[in-house]
Amino acid sequence: MPIPDRKRRKTRRPSTPAGELKVIPLGGLGEIGKNLTVFQYNDDIIVVDCGLKFPEDNMLGIDFVIPDVEFLIENKDKIRGVFITHGHEDHIGALPFILPRIDAPLYTSRLTAGLIENKMKDARTNYIPKFRETGPGTKVEAGAFTVEFIPVCHSIPDSFALAIRTPAGVIVHSGDFKLDPTPIDGRVSDYAAFAELGKEGVLLMLSDSTNAERSGFTPSERTVGQTFERLFRLYKDRRIVVATFASNIHRAQQVFNTAARFNRKVVLNGRSMIANVALARELGYIDVADDMLLTPQEAEHMAENRVVILTTGSQGEPFSGLVMMSKGAHRQIHLGPKDLVIVSATPIPGNEKLVSHTVNRLFACGCEVIYERTENIHVSGHASRDELKMLLSMVKPKFFMPVHGEYRHLIRHSQLARDVGIPAKNVFIMQNGDVLKFQDSKKAEVSGTVQSGAVMVDGIALGEFDGSILRERRELSENGLVVISLVLDKNWKPVAPIQIQTKGSVFSSEDGSTFKDLENAVRLGLEQFARTPGAKPETLPTEIRKRIRDVFGKTSRNYPTIVPLITKLTNAR
Amino acid sequence: MPIPDRKRRKTRRPSTPAGELKVIPLGGLGEIGKNLTVFQYNDDIIVVDCGLKFPEDNMLGIDFVIPDVEFLIENKDKIRGVFITHGHEDHIGALPFILPRIDAPLYTSRLTAGLIENKMKDARTNYIPKFRETGPGTKVEAGAFTVEFIPVCHSIPDSFALAIRTPAGVIVHSGDFKLDPTPIDGRVSDYAAFAELGKEGVLLMLSDSTNAERSGFTPSERTVGQTFERLFRLYKDRRIVVATFASNIHRAQQVFNTAARFNRKVVLNGRSMIANVALARELGYIDVADDMLLTPQEAEHMAENRVVILTTGSQGEPFSGLVMMSKGAHRQIHLGPKDLVIVSATPIPGNEKLVSHTVNRLFACGCEVIYERTENIHVSGHASRDELKMLLSMVKPKFFMPVHGEYRHLIRHSQLARDVGIPAKNVFIMQNGDVLKFQDSKKAEVSGTVQSGAVMVDGIALGEFDGSILRERRELSENGLVVISLVLDKNWKPVAPIQIQTKGSVFSSEDGSTFKDLENAVRLGLEQFARTPGAKPETLPTEIRKRIRDVFGKTSRNYPTIVPLITKLTNAR
Repeated sequence: MPIPDRKRRKTRRPSTPAGELKVIPLGGLGEIGKNLTVFQYNDDIIVVDCGLKFPEDNMLGIDFVIPDVEFLIENKDKIRGVFITHGHEDHIGALPFILPRIDAPLYTSRLTAGLIENKMKDARTNYIPKFRETGPGTKVEAGAFTVEFIPVCHSIPDSFALAIRTPAGVIVHSGDFKLDPTPIDGRVSDYAAFAELGKEGVLLMLSDSTNAERSGFTPSERTVGQTFERLFRLYKDRRIVVATFASNIHRAQQVFNTAARFNRKVVLNGRSMIANVALARELGYIDVADDMLLTPQEAEHMAENRVVILTTGSQGEPFSGLVMMSKGAHRQIHLGPKDLVIVSATPIPGNEKLVSHTVNRLFACGCEVIYERTENIHVSGHASRDELKMLLSMVKPKFFMPVHGEYRHLIRHSQLARDVGIPAKNVFIMQNGDVLKFQDSKKAEVSGTVQSGAVMVDGIALGEFDGSILRERRELSENGLVVISLVLDKNWKPVAPIQIQTKGSVFSSEDGSTFKDLENAVRLGLEQFARTPGAKPETLPTEIRKRIRDVFGKTSRNYPTIVPLITKLTNAR
Repeated sequence: MPIPDRKRRKTRRPSTPAGELKVIPLGGLGEIGKNLTVFQYNDDIIVVDCGLKFPEDNMLGIDFVIPDVEFLIENKDKIRGVFITHGHEDHIGALPFILPRIDAPLYTSRLTAGLIENKMKDARTNYIPKFRETGPGTKVEAGAFTVEFIPVCHSIPDSFALAIRTPAGVIVHSGDFKLDPTPIDGRVSDYAAFAELGKEGVLLMLSDSTNAERSGFTPSERTVGQTFERLFRLYKDRRIVVATFASNIHRAQQVFNTAARFNRKVVLNGRSMIANVALARELGYIDVADDMLLTPQEAEHMAENRVVILTTGSQGEPFSGLVMMSKGAHRQIHLGPKDLVIVSATPIPGNEKLVSHTVNRLFACGCEVIYERTENIHVSGHASRDELKMLLSMVKPKFFMPVHGEYRHLIRHSQLARDVGIPAKNVFIMQNGDVLKFQDSKKAEVSGTVQSGAVMVDGIALGEFDGSILRERRELSENGLVVISLVLDKNWKPVAPIQIQTKGSVFSSEDGSTFKDLENAVRLGLEQFARTPGAKPETLPTEIRKRIRDVFGKTSRNYPTIVPLITKLTNAR
């Protein structure tokens, strides 16, 4: 064991701050979704983003998942502000559940604030957020922190990275970003700000890992407009339907622009598309003349090739605009051989089959459908490998923490950091709840954890879902259910007909003979139980379950959940 | 209405056969899976393939789906043979359920027969198929048909296209194929046979549409071996785990070859991998020396970089070899930083998330993981657009019917047929159950349908699943269940405690106050019911349900399935 170098310890510079900086991700690591990061310096806390995640296939009946913020609730008094980088669900979606419980000021830009307001309304919460409007270059003092909003490009306008100044050094949080050289609104990612910070010296960077597997540069949003141009020219005799993400305001802007150039008007379709375009118009994020927009009724009187329908449903979501059209179930819009449908999106992982089914149904309507990535009808909003390396070499952080990605993305992003010269020991692949501590600007270590996890939301109930509920739901979903009601006298003899009901089982009450078998099995079980000396009453349900199970095993090899309800009448006979 | 050209009718050549040829797909159109096509000439029927399909996400608890073959069962006596093109599940998987019911001779090659035998054993059916061994160039007389087996390349050895000679003309069924110029076993697709048939004149071709969206040529299986070579060299100090489809015997052969060149031995892992390699070795489809294979126990005594593990689990299937390893739950194989894992497959649509989770867990074990398509570690077994056009121009069929694909694949394939000069009116995009009729070799039309559809299999029960069972399962899975047992006297008063149980609900019996609320709601319902003059007993369950529903609506907005079981004791009080 080496002897500690006492001399050097003594010469430690007194300028080193006495405080301790902690970075604690409570969501967004090892997953795409529910982004939430906590920065703490002594008794000051700020929170960056507060998102939700959509449930996994095995989370039956769950609407969505939010981060466990018990740590924040316990430290409510220390929270100086919540900072939101942009308005996507995985960054704002948990606010209606979490913000009322921590009641901190909410710092964000205008469009994002508008989206959050709509979200709070939808969630029917009475809480009114304490909005503090920010914008490009805004600097917010929040306890020991000064937070600066740095514009970045992404698939929603008004997206920001954050430069967080702390007594221990500067932290850069990339937010979700790409380095689009030709963004639709001309608002290029602020390279100068990043370069400036790099010159000044950055202690730690947290950066978006979503596309850390994708080589090269992510194409500019503008390339999609070029594809629209080509397709509008090619299909000039058809009505054109464009489906995309309702939050992708730039994509909508390009649809409006192309429609105007080809002398077409636009019908908006889908609740969130209509709401988001209205909000973006009101706040000046989208530029479209009033007479460019038609109601579906007005469109009926127009020639088909003068109309574009801009709709939701690009992910094949049940009941969304495009899906209703594909099923011939849309009240106003009926598709046929005179239509071209452009699905301007790629399926989010997990939605592949929904999208595929929708495309099949669209073809079956007789439309032409454009839906492949090879057609350049969609680009990602996240930086690819070369852009990630570019940001790393601009900001030149001393320490690096890949965020916003599954474990494989974090690993691949950390490899990029090493490629640009950050030593492996300075790169931290963390898990939600891990605490990264800085004693001074020289040393960082992952040390300790705080409570973290996934809180499932079902309806308005939340957090009370332990594994057993989901296990019960899975069992019910796979094999259905048998319920048996027995009313017995004190000698365990039935005093009323045995009632048996099934739900979702391979046998229904129409299978008379099987129901007879089930009833006989129960009777035999009861008789044997009654004959067994010293049989314990609490074992009867297990006995009944076993008998029922045997019948199903013999006939179908399908084992439903069995619920016996036994009523013993003490005063009967 | 034009006057019929009687003169021409009279001069109709007497050589035209008097019979009628019908082609009836009972599965495989508008879907990937459950391939089964019926060819009928007067009273002779032959069947090509008999596959299963894996269930959709909304088919809760269903194990798999097979074609409805009521038409075949009704015409059992006419069936002259079942012809199997190759041994994949979507071509053989329904045999254990369907073959015993039609009891026709089964024509197929040796490897495919071996796979079917194993499958029948697994399904625990007592039926013994009447195998008739075929091979390259075999010609089978079956009623009015003569069926010739034409070798094609695919991702399983011993794959065949079929040339079906009928009195009305020649039909070519491509089977699943690719035109690999350098297959591992040297068995190139038999271009000469196709060209010969093209010269002779082909009435109708049915061809594999799986990759009709993919441009160019599908790369040769051999390119994967080159990647193995490169990776084995690069990671020469590590243990190497290769996961792939157990049926891809050529892929396994390449793993053995590369292992031998790098002086490594191979451990087989996973039930189907072990069974398929054993079968392929026994029948001579794989060439591997005895001393190349190790048991896991033997491998423990070897240096890590002398070992390759060839395993199942490339689709992230629960309980498969690779998944157990990734979870640290495999009994013999424990992964760590000294391992390289190669996932030599792409996710089948629907399996994306399972694969993604597995890769994340593998990274978390500390392994290096190679899993991207860009790395050339997997190639498809199906022909891409240029190959499809090549087959079309070799065979030059008069009529064309794209098969083996979702609707969008069939559409794209039909466009290719038109590109090579087949008139649009001669291309038939059909649905399962449609009947394509040929009166002579000049005219084809889709006319009429036969019963067809999807039969769901759950355990060993099959076919009895109407929509209501799946709907019940979905409801149970989303919101769980409340069961109430009431034992009442003749005045509708409870004579025993009201019993309430929940399963998979947001409330469990630990929520004492909610359970009290539920009980009170039931009591109130009962009291009001008892007071209502002329209340009909059969309405009581509905009343109870409504009361329970209200409680859930107020507290959680979560609406479980409610099952009230009411016993009225007529002799009580």
